Amino acid sequence: MFNKNNTVELLCVGTELLLGNIVNTNAAFLAEEIAKLGLSSYYQSVVGDNAGRLEESIKLALSRSDIVILCGGLGPTEDDLTKEIASKVAGKQLLMHEESKKRIEDYFKKRGIKLTDNNFKQALIPEGATVLTNNNGTAPGVIIPYEDKFMILLPGPPGELKPMFYESVVPFLRKISPVIFKSRTVKVVSVGESVAETMIKDMIDAQTNPTIATYAKTGEVHIRVTASGKDEDECDSLIKPIIRELKNRFGNNIYTTHDEVSLEKAVVDLLLSGGLKVTAVESCTAGMVASRIVNVPGASDVFKYSLVTYCDEAKHKLAGVKKSTLEKQTAVSRETAEEMVKNLDAPLKSDVCVGVTGYADGEDAGHVFIACNVHGRVEVREFHFVGNRLKVRESATTQALVLMRDAVLKFLSEIAFS
Amino acid sequence: MFNKNNTVELLCVGTELLLGNIVNTNAAFLAEEIAKLGLSSYYQSVVGDNAGRLEESIKLALSRSDIVILCGGLGPTEDDLTKEIASKVAGKQLLMHEESKKRIEDYFKKRGIKLTDNNFKQALIPEGATVLTNNNGTAPGVIIPYEDKFMILLPGPPGELKPMFYESVVPFLRKISPVIFKSRTVKVVSVGESVAETMIKDMIDAQTNPTIATYAKTGEVHIRVTASGKDEDECDSLIKPIIRELKNRFGNNIYTTHDEVSLEKAVVDLLLSGGLKVTAVESCTAGMVASRIVNVPGASDVFKYSLVTYCDEAKHKLAGVKKSTLEKQTAVSRETAEEMVKNLDAPLKSDVCVGVTGYADGEDAGHVFIACNVHGRVEVREFHFVGNRLKVRESATTQALVLMRDAVLKFLSEIAFS
Repeated sequence: MFNKNNTVELLCVGTELLLGNIVNTNAAFLAEEIAKLGLSSYYQSVVGDNAGRLEESIKLALSRSDIVILCGGLGPTEDDLTKEIASKVAGKQLLMHEESKKRIEDYFKKRGIKLTDNNFKQALIPEGATVLTNNNGTAPGVIIPYEDKFMILLPGPPGELKPMFYESVVPFLRKISPVIFKSRTVKVVSVGESVAETMIKDMIDAQTNPTIATYAKTGEVHIRVTASGKDEDECDSLIKPIIRELKNRFGNNIYTTHDEVSLEKAVVDLLLSGGLKVTAVESCTAGMVASRIVNVPGASDVFKYSLVTYCDEAKHKLAGVKKSTLEKQTAVSRETAEEMVKNLDAPLKSDVCVGVTGYADGEDAGHVFIACNVHGRVEVREFHFVGNRLKVRESATTQALVLMRDAVLKFLSEIAFS
Repeated sequence: MFNKNNTVELLCVGTELLLGNIVNTNAAFLAEEIAKLGLSSYYQSVVGDNAGRLEESIKLALSRSDIVILCGGLGPTEDDLTKEIASKVAGKQLLMHEESKKRIEDYFKKRGIKLTDNNFKQALIPEGATVLTNNNGTAPGVIIPYEDKFMILLPGPPGELKPMFYESVVPFLRKISPVIFKSRTVKVVSVGESVAETMIKDMIDAQTNPTIATYAKTGEVHIRVTASGKDEDECDSLIKPIIRELKNRFGNNIYTTHDEVSLEKAVVDLLLSGGLKVTAVESCTAGMVASRIVNVPGASDVFKYSLVTYCDEAKHKLAGVKKSTLEKQTAVSRETAEEMVKNLDAPLKSDVCVGVTGYADGEDAGHVFIACNVHGRVEVREFHFVGNRLKVRESATTQALVLMRDAVLKFLSEIAFS
C-alpha cells in the first residue's frame, strides 16, 4: 500500500498538548517541511506521557508508515518516556553515550547551573541508533532503525527541534526520497469556494500530476497546485500550464500566485507600484483595515493614517460627514460611506481613501457599506455579511481590501490608456 | 478501560493540516475546552481528505474513545468527506435536511452570492443525527449516535467551530458527563507565567480537587480552577476558597474571575462604571487597540474614536505632537507618547486617552512606549517586547489595555477618597 521509505508520520508526545495548554506548532512546521521534501504524510497523532498508550501509538504508526517522527518526551524527568518506549519497541538497549554526556556537562557548566543525576538520562542512546547533536539544548535527537523503517526522535521545544531538523533530519530524508515535490498557491477574491470549484471542476477531475485543491479563507479561495518530478525544473514545467489556465479562468480575481503573498501585501505592492498613498476612515472595522495594512513590512511607504470614527460626532468632526447626512440617511448608508472618503486633501493629502461603515451586531448585523475614492473616482459597495461581531468585522475588512485593489487596478489601467 | 461517555478523542480532517498549510489551532481550542468540562482525552489525530484513511481513523477512534469530535471536511466540495464517511461508519443514510437547506439559501441570498448545486451537499444530514445550527457559515454541525458512543462533526473554520462548540456541544457534553465538573478562570496581568506559578506552587502541589493549572497567554496568565462534584453547588463551594486565596496573592493584577470576560471587556466595564469616555492615538498598533475595544458589544457607550497616526505628519497634524519633539526625541520616545495623549479636549472631548508608539520591526523591534491620560494624570510605560511584527503589536495592544485599566482604577480610587 505505501511506497517504501516514502511515507512519514508525525507522533507528538505530551500531555500538555492533550490539555490544550500549547498549540501544536511543531506538527505544522514538520508537516510543511516534509511536504517540501516530496515525502507523503497521511497521519499525525498526539499522545500523552503514558507508557502504554505511547507504545501502542508507536506500533500503530510503524505499521502504516515508513518513517515515524516523534517529537517531545526527551527531557530529564520521569514523565519523559519517548526514548525508553521507542527503544523497547525496537528491541534495543539504552547505553550511555559518552559524547552526549560530555556535551550535557559542558552545557550546565557554561550556564553555571547545578547538574542533577537525572540529566544524564538524556545521554542514554539505543544501541545502533544515530545520534543527532542538539546545539540548542541538552536532549540529543536519535534515529532508530526498525526493520526496514526508521523512528526519528526530536526534542519538543521548537527552538531545539527546528535547527536539529534542518541540520540533521533534512539531509537524512533527502537521501531516501525518490522524488521532489513543489507547490504553488493561486489566491482568488470575489468568488466563493463552491463557485470557484465549479469553474475548475474539469481541471480537478482530470488532475493526476499536478494535483489541484481548493481552500476557503475569509473572503478568499486558495487553489493549491502540487507537482512531483525528478527535480525542481520538471515540477515547474508541470505547474506552469495549470497556473496559466487558472489565470485564464479567474483573470483579475487572482491577486497572487505566490504562497507568501497575503491580500494586504498584494494591495500594498499595488499602491507602491502606482506611487499612491492611502488613508482609511473606519467605523465598524474600527482599525482592522489599518491594522492589516500595517502588518505588511514596509507599509509606511504607502499608508499614512486611519481615522477610527466610531461615534457619529467623530464621523462629522474628523471625517467631515455632514450632520444632515448622519441624521437623514443614518451612519450606515451609502451616502455616509461616500462622504467618509470624499476629502483626499484633508486632514492630510492622499491618493486613495477607503471607508467602512456598518452594523457589527443588532437587528441589521452584517449590513455594511464600503467606499473607496481613488483621485476622485468613488465606488461604493453594499454587503450583508453573516456571523458574529468579529466575523462581520473581519469580512468587512477583507472586502475593503478587495475594493481598494479593484479600484486602484481600474484607476491604474485608466491612466495607462489615457 | 475507559469510563463510559467520559473519554473524548479529536480527529481533525484536512490535507491542509498534513501539508502544514495551517496550524491546528482547533485541536488546542477543543482540548482546552474538553479539559474544562472535566472530560479526559488520550489521543488527537489528523488525517487527510482521503475516504479510506478517514474511515479507518474514525473506526480506530471509536474503538478506543467514547466521543469522537471530528473537525473539518464539511464544506461543499468533493474533497469534503467527513459527513459521508461518518455516516457510512454509523450505517446511516444521508437525507436532505430542509431547515438547513433553507438556511443555506438564506445565507447566499442575504449576501447576494449565486448558489450552486454543490452547496446543498452541506444540508445533507445522516438519519437520526442531531443538527447543530451554524450561525457563522453554511455547514451545519451534526451529532451522530453510534452504538453507545457519539461522533460530533464540526466545521473546520475556527470562526464557525468555536461558537458552535459553545452553543451546542458544551450543553450536550455536560448532559452526558457522569459527574459534574465546573471550572473558573482567574485572569492575571502584569505577572509572568513562571513568577505566577512560583507564587502558587504550594497550592498547585497540594491540589487534588479542585485542580489548579496555569496557561500563558499574550501578556496574561490564566489560572484555571476545576472542581468535580455531585452538583454545581458542591463544585462552587470547592472553588470559592481557592479563588479567595488567589485574590489574596494576586490582588489588583486579577482583572476577572469569569471565563467569558476578556481584558477588553473588563476595561470597557470599568470605563462604563466610571462614566468615562475613551479615545486612542495609535502608531505601531495601528488600530488594534480600537479594534479590541470595539469587539466588546456595547463599546459605543465608552469608545469615541482612535487616530491611527502612522506617519509622523499624522502624529503632528492629527494628534498635535510637536514637530520639534518628533525631530529631537523621535517618534518612538517617552515624549512623543506623552504628547499623543495630552489633549483630552480636541478633536473631541474625552476622559481617557491611550497612546502607543514603537517599532514593530527593524533594529529596535519591540521597543514600545505606551501612555495613558486620565483627566490630566499621565502615565507612560516603556517596553521591550520579543517576537515578530504581529506578536510585538499584539503584546503592545494588551499592555495598552493593562495600562488603561491600571490608570483608570487609580483615578477612580483617588476620586473616591478625595
